[in-house]
Order: sequence, then C-alpha cells, then structure tokens
Amino acid sequence: MAKDFSTREENYSKWYNDIVQRAGLAENSAVRGCMVIKPYGYAIWEKMQAALDKMFKDTGHSNAYFPIFIPKSFFSKEADHVEGFAKECAVVTHYRLKNDPNGKGIVVDEDAKLEEELIIRPTSETIIWDTYRNWVQSYRDLPILLNQWANVVRWEMRTRLFLRTAEFLWQEGHTAHATQQEAIEETELMLGVYSDFAENFMAMPVLQGTKSINERFAGAVETYCIEALMQDGKALQAGTSHFLGQNFAKAFDVKFASPEGKLEYVWATSWGVSTRLVGALIMAHSDDHGLVLPPKLAPIQVVIIPIYKNEEQKISVIQKGREIKDKLEVRGISVKLDDRDTYKPGWKFNEYEFKGVPLRIAIGPRDVENKTVELARRDTLEKEIVPMADIDIKIEQLLKTIQDNLFKKALSFREENTFNADTWNEFVEILDSKGGFIYAHWDGTAETEQKIKEETKATIRCIPLNGKKEEGKCIFSGKPSSQRVVFARAY
Amino acid sequence: MAKDFSTREENYSKWYNDIVQRAGLAENSAVRGCMVIKPYGYAIWEKMQAALDKMFKDTGHSNAYFPIFIPKSFFSKEADHVEGFAKECAVVTHYRLKNDPNGKGIVVDEDAKLEEELIIRPTSETIIWDTYRNWVQSYRDLPILLNQWANVVRWEMRTRLFLRTAEFLWQEGHTAHATQQEAIEETELMLGVYSDFAENFMAMPVLQGTKSINERFAGAVETYCIEALMQDGKALQAGTSHFLGQNFAKAFDVKFASPEGKLEYVWATSWGVSTRLVGALIMAHSDDHGLVLPPKLAPIQVVIIPIYKNEEQKISVIQKGREIKDKLEVRGISVKLDDRDTYKPGWKFNEYEFKGVPLRIAIGPRDVENKTVELARRDTLEKEIVPMADIDIKIEQLLKTIQDNLFKKALSFREENTFNADTWNEFVEILDSKGGFIYAHWDGTAETEQKIKEETKATIRCIPLNGKKEEGKCIFSGKPSSQRVVFARAY
Repeated sequence: MAKDFSTREENYSKWYNDIVQRAGLAENSAVRGCMVIKPYGYAIWEKMQAALDKMFKDTGHSNAYFPIFIPKSFFSKEADHVEGFAKECAVVTHYRLKNDPNGKGIVVDEDAKLEEELIIRPTSETIIWDTYRNWVQSYRDLPILLNQWANVVRWEMRTRLFLRTAEFLWQEGHTAHATQQEAIEETELMLGVYSDFAENFMAMPVLQGTKSINERFAGAVETYCIEALMQDGKALQAGTSHFLGQNFAKAFDVKFASPEGKLEYVWATSWGVSTRLVGALIMAHSDDHGLVLPPKLAPIQVVIIPIYKNEEQKISVIQKGREIKDKLEVRGISVKLDDRDTYKPGWKFNEYEFKGVPLRIAIGPRDVENKTVELARRDTLEKEIVPMADIDIKIEQLLKTIQDNLFKKALSFREENTFNADTWNEFVEILDSKGGFIYAHWDGTAETEQKIKEETKATIRCIPLNGKKEEGKCIFSGKPSSQRVVFARAY
Repeated sequence: MAKDFSTREENYSKWYNDIVQRAGLAENSAVRGCMVIKPYGYAIWEKMQAALDKMFKDTGHSNAYFPIFIPKSFFSKEADHVEGFAKECAVVTHYRLKNDPNGKGIVVDEDAKLEEELIIRPTSETIIWDTYRNWVQSYRDLPILLNQWANVVRWEMRTRLFLRTAEFLWQEGHTAHATQQEAIEETELMLGVYSDFAENFMAMPVLQGTKSINERFAGAVETYCIEALMQDGKALQAGTSHFLGQNFAKAFDVKFASPEGKLEYVWATSWGVSTRLVGALIMAHSDDHGLVLPPKLAPIQVVIIPIYKNEEQKISVIQKGREIKDKLEVRGISVKLDDRDTYKPGWKFNEYEFKGVPLRIAIGPRDVENKTVELARRDTLEKEIVPMADIDIKIEQLLKTIQDNLFKKALSFREENTFNADTWNEFVEILDSKGGFIYAHWDGTAETEQKIKEETKATIRCIPLNGKKEEGKCIFSGKPSSQRVVFARAY
C-alpha cells in the first residue's frame, strides 16, 4: 500500500510523521507546538496509563492532584531548578478579557492584572513541596508516596508530535522520606518499574543508568534514566527517576521530628514518563508498511474482516465473525469486527495493517464451508489458514509470541547497533556511519562532555548501572577513566 | 468524636468544610481559588471516572485530548459563547521569564510577548470545533463521538472546595452528527447516562429537565441537566448535556457532504460532569459523624481493625484479619487491614467512621475464640456480632443493602422537601422556612425569572422532562402557564 508514504530509508523523519498522522494517532493543532491526540493515539496512551498506574499502586503509591498554576516566586526558591525550568514557560499575567472598546472582538482587561504572575507547571516539585510542608510534622507522616497524572507545558521552540510538544501529558511521582537511603531505594525502585514497563509492555529494551551532571534534572542530586535505541540509530530517553536529596525540603522548609525528637529535613524523589513514550513505541517497532504495536498496548488486538459477495454470504460470514469475537473476548482479548459496507475488504486490510493491529482474521464463504479462517500476523506479515476450532487458544498464544518476538527483534537491533570505541577516530566514524549506542571511556568532566557534544552532537546517554569496571583512557582527552559510558545522538 | 467538628445544624457550611479537610479529601493551595485534591479525595474521583468512562465507552464514545490553550480570537467566533466564557479566565501573554536585571528573582521577559494571547480552556467547544473542520468532509465521517478528561480554569471570585474552584477536573463530551434528530438523541442519551450514574453509583436521586434561557449554556440551543437536593435544602446542578444545534459548526465552518451530495452544517452536542460531583456526594449523604460514602464509590469498602493486648493476641487476630481480607478481595471488595501499632483501636474507629468507610470489622481475641467478628455499618451506625463463616457473602449483601439504603434515604429526604407553591406568599414562605424543590407555575419569560431571583435568590433549576401538563398562573406575574417548573436556591 501507501505509495505516498515514506520508507525509513528514504526519509526517517517523514516516515515517522506519516505514521503518526495516517494511523490517526495525533496531529498539530491551531496552537503552535501543541498537539491534538486523536482517539487511536489516546487509546494507546490509556493502555500505557492503565499498566503504569497499576504498577505504581502495587508499589504503594496513591494518586493526587495539585494546581496547574505555580506562583512565579516558587521557582526562585531552588537555585538549580529555576535555571532549568523557569525560563521557557507559559506565563499567566491577567485573569479577565473584555470587549474591545475600539471595535470588534475581545482584549485583555488591563485592570485584571495579577499581582504575581502564575506559571503553567513545567513540572510540579515546587508547588508540591510547598504543600508537603503542611503535611509533615513527624516521622509518622512519612513516607509520602504520591503520583499525579497531569498536563504540563514547556515552551519548546522545535516540536515534533509526541516526541517534543509544548503541552504534553505525563505522570509525575513525588515522594518524601525520612532517610537518604529510603529515598535512594525509592528512586531505584521506580527506575525498575519503568524498565519493566518498557521491556514487558512496550517490548522495547532499555539501558538503565545515571546521567552525567550536564544531563541531570535541574534540582536533582542524581538522575537515573532508561534509554532506548530507535531504528535510525538515535537514542531516546524514555523515563527518568530523580533522587532530589534535601534540596526541595530546604527550599520549602519541610522538616520532620525524628523518633529521637530531632528536627531534620525530608528526603525527596521525583520520577516521570510522558506521552513521549507513544513516540518511542512508534519508532521502536514500526516498519515501511506502517505502525506495528505490541499486543499488550494495542487498542485493537485482533481485527476480523468479513469477505462476501452477496447478502446470503454476508449473513453467514458475519455470524462466524461474531462467534469468534465472542470467544476471544471471553479471554480478555480486544477484538474489532469491521462489518462496514462502506469500505471494501482490500481497503480494510491496508487500513488495519497501517494501524498496526497485531492479528487480522479474514473470513470468506469458503472459510465458513471449510471451518477455517485466514490469520495474518502484523509483525512478520505471515499468513496462514487455520481451523476455527480452538482459534481462541491459538490466538492467545500467538499474541504472546508476537509480544516476545517484537522484544527480541528490538533487542537484536540494539545489540547489532551497540559498539565499543577506543579512539576518537573510531568514535566519530561509528557515529557517522552507523549511529547506535557507543560505549567509550570518558574522563568524567563536564568540559569534555560538552566538547564532544559540540563536535559530534553526541551526548552521554547514561553511565550504565552495574557497568563493569575497566581501566581505560578518555577518547577525547586521553585522561584515565575507570568505566565506559554510553554515548549516542539522541532525540 | 470530634468536638471541634461542626454539625449540620450549627453551621452547614463549616460542617462541609470540616468534612472535606478532616477526611483528607482536599485543601486550599497556595494559588488563590485552586485546590489540592488529596489522595483520599482523588481516589473517590478515580472511582467516579472509572464508572463514567465505562458508561461512555459502552455508548460508543472514545477519549481524545485537545490543547489546554485556546487562541483568544476563537472565543469571538460564537456570539453567545464569548459572553458566557471569555471574560473570567486565565490569560497567557508571555512565554519566557528571565533573571531580574535589577536584582534577585525572575521577571517576565517582555521580549517574549505572544502575538495573540492564549486562554486556558474554560471549556473546549471552540478548539474542538476548529479541529473537527478538518476531520469532516462527508456523512461517512459522522458521527464523531469523543470525550476528553481534562482540567479547565474559570476565574471564580468566590470559591469552595470541590463545589466551585478556579481550576477543576472534568470530562467534556463533544459529538458531531449529520442530523438534528441524532444530535438531540445523543444529548438525551448522555443525560440518561448522568442520571443513571448519579442514582446508581452516587446513590443520589436527581431530577431531569431542561434549563430556562437564563440558565442555558452559552452557545447552546437547549441545555439539559440533572439536579440534586442537598441536606440544607439547596439544589446542586450535577451535570449538563447541551444540544448545540449548528451554532459551533457555523462559527467554525464545519460542513459535510450529505449522501445526496449537498453541503450541510454539522449538528453538535457537548456534555460534562466535574469534580463538583465529589462535593455533591459529600453533601448528599454525610452526617454529624463525618463523611458517609456509598459502597460503589468508596475507595475502602471494608476496614478491618485488630484489637489485642499482647504479642500473642496480635498474631492471632491479625492472622484472622488477613484471612477475612483475602476472602473479601476474591469477591472484588476493597479492604484495608489497619494493623498499625502507632494508633490505638479507638482512634482508628473514629478515623474510619469520619472517612465514611461503609463497613468496619473489629476482631479481638474473644472473637477469634468464638469465631465471630463485630461488624459496624457506617450508614446506620448499627453494630452486630456475626459469625466468621460466610462473612464474605454477608458483607457482599450488606454493601448492596447500604448502597440501596443511602439512595432511599436521600430520596425520602427529597420527597419530604419537595413542595408545590401556588401563590407568591406561599412560595416565599416555603423558601425561607424549608428550602427544597418548589414546583410552581411560571409565565415562561426571562424577565419574571430574573425578578424572582432578585427578590428571593431562587432560580429555575429545571423544566422537568415529562412534567405533567397543568394549567395555572405564574406565581409572580399571574400570567397563564401550562406546566410547573422547579425552583430552588442553588449552589
């Protein structure tokens, strides 16, 4: 299908945009940098939300909701945070419009100027820690284990659907603890949750690591992250979990009385993933035929397309389709039977292939006769004729197989595109010819990282957790290094 | 409990605030008019969302997401809408802050002024219909049946937790249809969904009706609503469903080609309920002992409190508690076993009573011996000793009984507080002495309604659907009327 649709080879960036738009996932809105998430794209996000929300609750967290507005002065309270976040943001200055006295339309009412400007949250540490101050008196009030599902705004100049938008949807966890150790354990626990979600739901292998100082969250003591590799050899940061130390507790004066009666500052974490994950999911698995979705996050797992030439055939194939649908739904499989007359089977085949539905069942009159159906896999594009009996068991197994297969395929791709570089020339050559993750020695300084970035656009994606210790020399400065770090060009 | 807690009699308004705050539902934030929804309050909202979302999907709707920002000019496109919504709203004028050149802190960067101001959505008809224009060409593209879960902002001057806040959470359905009839049917269908939800989940009886012109949604042809009666005799609008005619299609130029090839404007509906429902739920059932929650929306349906004096007793009662918890959870009942050592049983009894948990199980050493537990109902405050065997069946039934009982109680209250008034004196006397819903004749003019409001603060809550036709005279003007309408003072 789709001659007017780019392949990855031809134009990777256009290929991505074509999938997002033609599969009905999202589109640009009338507001610069803000997207409309269309029903099919939103259904994927809902699947992600449901899985993550359950994982958060299973690890003891509850949801809450904090205001979208943050008083401007709050940002100045944490010195690093203000540098990182308070600059490119949406600022509310007035609270009223009025009819234009000079003509048509409406204008801002200058009499309704706010005393202090309000910022649309780019992230909520400040408003939340201002609130926690009143919630915490004693160690008995700790830990606080909260998460918020919300929209946030960062005034990005160059935006791309899902990957970087001015407004996006996310979850942000904000926890408060009595001890440093407990807060670090929480940070690592949630990194593990994100990694589990990425690999077991998104079928997307990720590296776990910590960020260098340059890439650290503004206000964090340590930023942990998961990093995935896209099909164009660029890395994508898929989630972050921050150990915030006592920085926000000090900025907002949040103290607790320890069991010994001493007043101490509270320890903090925050962690988040966003609708960016939908972009990652698209790029991780899709091919030149369109979107490919892992069964666990596919809004429609199986589509059934009836094929018929007359009314009599129509009745019998649709009836068979309904029987199969019912059987599958009993097993918790989400099925769409597309019995619309307004579109032909061939059009429907293309449509659901493009939308990445993992399995397609076609039923024609001969199938009814032979008690078979045609079953097509989206991941391999293989078709087979299978008996109708026990089709529910077959499909349940096949969905698991597809989920595993997508993960294995993405893992192989990552392995094939992960390299060691021991010299600067080797490093540059790999970057320019292949991309991918490059393990290389680095002298540990922000200065060297910055220079490497300026020369190659590659950044340190992470310092791998449990990376093996290995003496070496920094590829750029030649200074000694004790561990390889992971470089890549990134989204 | 709670001597420092107001009764309804003493101070209804303070009683409400005390419940919201002391039950941990919500609190005021540092931002004027915006609330923090605390975990327990948010858990109620999540229960509401889950039930409503399922009902929306069962009636064919999907979720989507549209930008929070609306260009100022969009509001001027629908003449009535701009009058109703564009005035008291949050206006974004700048997209950057910078370090204050004269000293500390940060200031708005005047170089980063938006060409056109952006309004934080007070409701999304305008941005959505601007989007629908590109989605609709032919009758085949209709209907569009979408819903959005989102935050919205209306700059209210006098706010109350849940009932009226500057920012609130809601859902807004926005549908597009080929015919007037289909759009009206959709409007009525969703009113029915709201009514069903209010009565069967919130256990809150509601009147269904349409609004007078004065109370109609800005931009609607007809506004349908559900109205509930609170314990202080005031009405609360719990949900609205609007038939928008072709107003927004005309304002945003959304046309479709009919099967006959004619270009026609699309017909629209919108419908919404908000976190205001949490306020309604609190006021509908709670008593002078605190919150009372219907089982279907209670985050914790059953709390188990172990009672013991020594370690040996502790082990055996907690073990029994766990067995009961497991048995109940198999039936899908949400149970909390509060085995904290840091609080005494008496404190816990008060705590969960105040938080409105429908059923409380207490287990002491003697209960273990006798194979019984003490079971207490929150709605009636009755206690009984019941055998442990089959406690899961007993509790499942009891939760249904409590749900029914709360509805019946609220219905009786409404019936006792619903009156006919045939003269102005009677009307005023009932309003001032009892409040409640007053069925009275009205001449159908906006002028009379306005005067009645000015003199009594009562408004027409709705013109009841299926109200019986009855000749009469307007209580205010004496002019003829063919149907009684429902008056009340309202939230």
